[in-house]
Amino acid sequence: MTHYIDVAAMQQLVSHHGLANLMEEIAECIREDFMRWGGSNQSPRTATAFGVVADVATGYPTLVSELRITTALRTAATSALAAKVLARKNSHSMALIGNGAQSEFQAIAFMTQLGISELRVFDVDRKATDKLVANLAPYASKGTLTIVRAASIREAVRGADIVTTITADKSNATILTDDLVEPGMHLNAVGGDCPGKTELQPSILLRSKVFVEYEPQTRMEGELQQMPQDFQTHALWRVLAGQQRGRDNAEQVTLFDSVGFALEDLSALRYIHALSRKLGIGSTVDLVPVLPDPKNLFACATAARPALRQAA
Amino acid sequence: MTHYIDVAAMQQLVSHHGLANLMEEIAECIREDFMRWGGSNQSPRTATAFGVVADVATGYPTLVSELRITTALRTAATSALAAKVLARKNSHSMALIGNGAQSEFQAIAFMTQLGISELRVFDVDRKATDKLVANLAPYASKGTLTIVRAASIREAVRGADIVTTITADKSNATILTDDLVEPGMHLNAVGGDCPGKTELQPSILLRSKVFVEYEPQTRMEGELQQMPQDFQTHALWRVLAGQQRGRDNAEQVTLFDSVGFALEDLSALRYIHALSRKLGIGSTVDLVPVLPDPKNLFACATAARPALRQAA
Repeated sequence: MTHYIDVAAMQQLVSHHGLANLMEEIAECIREDFMRWGGSNQSPRTATAFGVVADVATGYPTLVSELRITTALRTAATSALAAKVLARKNSHSMALIGNGAQSEFQAIAFMTQLGISELRVFDVDRKATDKLVANLAPYASKGTLTIVRAASIREAVRGADIVTTITADKSNATILTDDLVEPGMHLNAVGGDCPGKTELQPSILLRSKVFVEYEPQTRMEGELQQMPQDFQTHALWRVLAGQQRGRDNAEQVTLFDSVGFALEDLSALRYIHALSRKLGIGSTVDLVPVLPDPKNLFACATAARPALRQAA
Repeated sequence: MTHYIDVAAMQQLVSHHGLANLMEEIAECIREDFMRWGGSNQSPRTATAFGVVADVATGYPTLVSELRITTALRTAATSALAAKVLARKNSHSMALIGNGAQSEFQAIAFMTQLGISELRVFDVDRKATDKLVANLAPYASKGTLTIVRAASIREAVRGADIVTTITADKSNATILTDDLVEPGMHLNAVGGDCPGKTELQPSILLRSKVFVEYEPQTRMEGELQQMPQDFQTHALWRVLAGQQRGRDNAEQVTLFDSVGFALEDLSALRYIHALSRKLGIGSTVDLVPVLPDPKNLFACATAARPALRQAA
């Protein structure tokens, strides 16, 4: 039988384990998988509305799972993982430009994994910011997080240690302009994540040390779309593996051009699978007949169970 | 919610509607879809252990279904569909070489859709033939089908109107040799269906009029693997659409080099979806959160239902 995590089961996982724990543990799984991966060939991700993990040897699906919440968790986990090795030590403030569906996940991951205590938020949609502020109110009331509503992108970014751009604009937009970027900032560019969708002014990339998950995909989907083919990037996994330095000095602008890729989905789904089984959350589905005699599919096809036959 | 057909629900469908009806109606859906398709570009199928149909506009999965039984149904349905326009009229005997998982489905589809009344069966695995004979016993006892157990491929093929090859041999095997093929036969070559797996001696293709589902895929997966790139084939859909003749005369050997492709899966799944809803068979799964406010994924992620929270 295939383990099955539907939306309600995912909500239970979040309720039992906590968003912060989930994202911290997913980040650790992604870190381990990145280092094991070693940059060898990787299929670009296929856009699906839900997640499937299958046994490589048999093809049997071991997990079918919701993917939308999982994607928000793994994206924020990956952002935090990268920022931990790229942002300046003792970073405490983050600008969060774009307060849509994934914004709270980013905020919580950076708060709990990097010690971000000041969040400077901006969105052209005021209602989106209202929603973010309401959703994060419990953290703000505990005093662990100060949320500053900025009147503009400029105001949000000024003096921040980290700038996360995660808008929903489906075009080549210029959310962040070069003049706003200060020496030493770490830019967590999440929203430029499909062909034709970017958020940063190209000149920002020219003055940054740019880190990527998997270069061939980032060239097609990330901020890197805007740069020539020979523009130099650095593989995040090499920094995680200690093979390459991340940030060179406190004045350098570092940029994580995040697009999200298959390895991260698989890491997150494997983690969700293991945790949900451990907690007894989720159920099973029976999508692939297991045949006592592999040549006797006919017997399986015509074996309607009596109980079901009666029920109908 | 996503409609969900598990193995048990598929068995119920077979029990309620009957294998013959299912395959006849799937054949009709495939015929309509082939004609609508018109040979334009088509992605090669992705091997998955189960089936998914998604709404093109939203990406929301409308159906998640078992695929193994469905594949046997649609493969036999497609074979019968092709044979109807390619085999000689009044064909009554079929050799069935390979008596494995899909063999009974082929037998029933040809019996009910083409009026095949004599089945000449052979498999190197005697137990596979025992199984086929036992599974088809109800049809034989009704007198609608005579099953002849042949001692060799040669004996099975001799005098048959149609020859179906559907062995499980995962290599470039020579199941059917040129000297066994008689003028006027229709060859339904099903088992040569992935790279490195063929069943026919290449010279058979040279003397046959060869029909394919989608040529680029058949060149990679079908008997066509063995032929040069300029070897002429004919598109089955053009014959179905009346744009091209199938069989030219009673002496011609026709060959359907079947590999199974994405359009057939989709036709079959759409049919299964509609029928199961009509019959009230199947259930639902909730794999994709539907958000009242698309920007408030956080509220959904943290909204574990009280009942579930209590249960844990």
